Amino acid sequence: MLNPADEALAARLPEGVLREIAPAYLEEPRGRYRGQAGLVAAPRSTDEVAAVVRACAEARVGIVPRGGGTGLVAGQVMPEGPAPLILSLERMTALRAIYPEENVLVAEAGMTLQAVRDAASGVGRLFPLSLAAQGTAAIGGNLATNAGGVTALRYGTARALCLGIEAVLPDGRVLHDLKRLRKDNTGYDIRDLLIGAEGTLGIITAASLKLVVPPAGIGTAMLQVPSPEAALTLLSLAEGRMAGGVTAFELISGQGLAFLAEVLPGIRQPLPGAPWSVLIEVGLPMGLAPEAALESLLTEAMERDLVLDGAIAQSGQQAVDFWNLREHLPEANRRIGAIASHDISLPLSEIAGFIAAADAALAPEGVRINCFGHLGDGNLHYNLFPAAGRRREDYDDRRKALSRRVHQMVVDRGGSFSAEHGVGRLKVAELQHWGDPARLAVMRALKDSLDPLGIMNPGAVLSARA
Amino acid sequence: MLNPADEALAARLPEGVLREIAPAYLEEPRGRYRGQAGLVAAPRSTDEVAAVVRACAEARVGIVPRGGGTGLVAGQVMPEGPAPLILSLERMTALRAIYPEENVLVAEAGMTLQAVRDAASGVGRLFPLSLAAQGTAAIGGNLATNAGGVTALRYGTARALCLGIEAVLPDGRVLHDLKRLRKDNTGYDIRDLLIGAEGTLGIITAASLKLVVPPAGIGTAMLQVPSPEAALTLLSLAEGRMAGGVTAFELISGQGLAFLAEVLPGIRQPLPGAPWSVLIEVGLPMGLAPEAALESLLTEAMERDLVLDGAIAQSGQQAVDFWNLREHLPEANRRIGAIASHDISLPLSEIAGFIAAADAALAPEGVRINCFGHLGDGNLHYNLFPAAGRRREDYDDRRKALSRRVHQMVVDRGGSFSAEHGVGRLKVAELQHWGDPARLAVMRALKDSLDPLGIMNPGAVLSARA
Repeated sequence: MLNPADEALAARLPEGVLREIAPAYLEEPRGRYRGQAGLVAAPRSTDEVAAVVRACAEARVGIVPRGGGTGLVAGQVMPEGPAPLILSLERMTALRAIYPEENVLVAEAGMTLQAVRDAASGVGRLFPLSLAAQGTAAIGGNLATNAGGVTALRYGTARALCLGIEAVLPDGRVLHDLKRLRKDNTGYDIRDLLIGAEGTLGIITAASLKLVVPPAGIGTAMLQVPSPEAALTLLSLAEGRMAGGVTAFELISGQGLAFLAEVLPGIRQPLPGAPWSVLIEVGLPMGLAPEAALESLLTEAMERDLVLDGAIAQSGQQAVDFWNLREHLPEANRRIGAIASHDISLPLSEIAGFIAAADAALAPEGVRINCFGHLGDGNLHYNLFPAAGRRREDYDDRRKALSRRVHQMVVDRGGSFSAEHGVGRLKVAELQHWGDPARLAVMRALKDSLDPLGIMNPGAVLSARA
Repeated sequence: MLNPADEALAARLPEGVLREIAPAYLEEPRGRYRGQAGLVAAPRSTDEVAAVVRACAEARVGIVPRGGGTGLVAGQVMPEGPAPLILSLERMTALRAIYPEENVLVAEAGMTLQAVRDAASGVGRLFPLSLAAQGTAAIGGNLATNAGGVTALRYGTARALCLGIEAVLPDGRVLHDLKRLRKDNTGYDIRDLLIGAEGTLGIITAASLKLVVPPAGIGTAMLQVPSPEAALTLLSLAEGRMAGGVTAFELISGQGLAFLAEVLPGIRQPLPGAPWSVLIEVGLPMGLAPEAALESLLTEAMERDLVLDGAIAQSGQQAVDFWNLREHLPEANRRIGAIASHDISLPLSEIAGFIAAADAALAPEGVRINCFGHLGDGNLHYNLFPAAGRRREDYDDRRKALSRRVHQMVVDRGGSFSAEHGVGRLKVAELQHWGDPARLAVMRALKDSLDPLGIMNPGAVLSARA
């Protein structure tokens, strides 16, 4: 039974776009927010998306776009305010075209990241974006949130991998900018404005994506380093040797390994007990054996005391094992139960100082710290857990203050309180607090200009107008 | 002697910012436009830029920002409308900071591209942006126009090389976003909106720029190819072998070599008379000799009939000679005198078809065609010259129609009529003609929202409001 307002809106929608509401539409992975139940529309085409948007504009109903629903900042659920229409891209999953000779693929927004990667792989190409949730995450959501992941060091974030978009604007017009060009200087960069806007300026319905020819040889190693500082010097050394060939450079803390051993003892650990380790992947040209290149790097790094111990994968299976360890860190964290998670980035030269200062500042708080992540990008997940034997609830009254202190230390060093997850609804207040006032004013002006009714993902990124 | 309006404005400006007007402030390289004489202000700091902008806003006087003045689309000169204030960045040339361990450099907008490159090189780093005018072009202008050049294939255009900006907005507020972060998802991408906006949404006063560790080995070769199609297959082959190590891939036409031989006979030609040739540069990891990698590529390419003949540079001097040839193509063109130049880009798989179709369509027109450029980016300069013995003026009545036909063929194939030079004032009508209506509407809305008085580079990119 629809209420009268929903019924009036439903009558304006294209035939057959409505879906039954289901709990999955109202949830986000961390379980902190629950969306309000409203209509759920799943259009089958860009024109239907446009029709839904126009109907919502006429009815003044907010729209919450939804891809795979894997976002970590509650951009995909609206817990407050008038119930929105949930616009799911689940039926727009077509691979529109693939051009191996151009290294380009055109995907609809609902295609999962894994499906995009598989389609590229099917024609001997690589779509480099890679993240733990890729089996569920939709490419449209990856673009809307400018997702990062483990290969941004070499290939950039989602923004850098997108050549063109098609999108429905807040007034229902369709932006046709699905170009397949590497260079196009014909006016303002509207594409990059919609990318990362988290659905607050329009809905991306399709994108042309950049593929690459996979490197001839891939090498993987797990290296124990004495400190994060040494890890960064190692990165510099590796970059000098590999000519841009370092694909991933992930920092893993001893605490992370301890959590894994505790809750996921089946995960093989090549360097158990290492206080700090690095997972490095290189992709190298023909004529250079990656194992030999890593071996030579390791030798120099050990001579310079940058690496204490190391394991170079001697088989594809070993490389998979190393990555498997890395990719289970978030799951181990989830099982332990974080008090607070921080998706931060810092200028590379500030990282070692930040970790030391933050660890020291938080020591009296009785928390365990798991600091890990995409060190090559300066992007760390600095996550706080209860001391052994205590529960996360014991810290409820301190959670906000702890996060504020972490973010303060980050911002003081020129860093960001949201490196790759975005703002969503979780960090709206943080953005207002830390954001540059002129930049916030520009953001607000753009929002008001493009979405004067405030119907596009209300309350995400910027607070909703009263 | 200032007129009364200029005198009133001058009185509001910070002390000592005014400069004598000089012809250089009113010129652009191709000599098609001449700017109107107005006040010239050269602020010494971001605060002074802000003060000048506020004064112009109060006086309702347009501002034309000026870096090195090397732009090719008349973004830096305003020939029509009320005389503007010319805001030159010539005094803001400081290197604010350099962080070799972060691969970051912070430059003021007036620093020349060459000075930025030299500063990076001084600490063992490379700022990859490279273009013929780099000795004069200012980095602020490179960003404002999202300059491309010869290394975009590997490193991207200016936008991809910028981590953060400081800018003065049309109301005189200062945007402080000089971050040194590889990942920062805290709201809308205002940086990329100002980059490429050609000074119409604000004035970039400083930028933090991405450096790279230079590749261990660099190899250069000049290869004769049977056709542009073969050149593109060769590019694909090279990318598969070099793992992203192809830095530049430039197409050179036989007509270009003939022009060089005619007007610059001192330039050494390794493959004289080749109907098509390619200049390839690779940057490779330690442990792989670039000459050997190119030799191996050449062998396979010749077996597959993708290359007919080739010369691999055996010394730094030979590599310089190859680049010297490439970099003198524009000068030879200038001396011959083009009827019309087209800075186009195409999807890679459309290039061969476009060249064949356009050459055939223009054959009856009695023009010589020099088609050359950044083939790896799909970016060609498709330039038309008078038949031998005729003058460019003989084609005056046909110039516009010829360009329109070329652009029509480009747009029909999903290409762009401005790949790297921008819109400026030269291509405002083209943008209105070819641009996607929804995208144009968004551009106009953003311009009106951020610059309601219309004082920022009036008439560039978008026509000035009456």
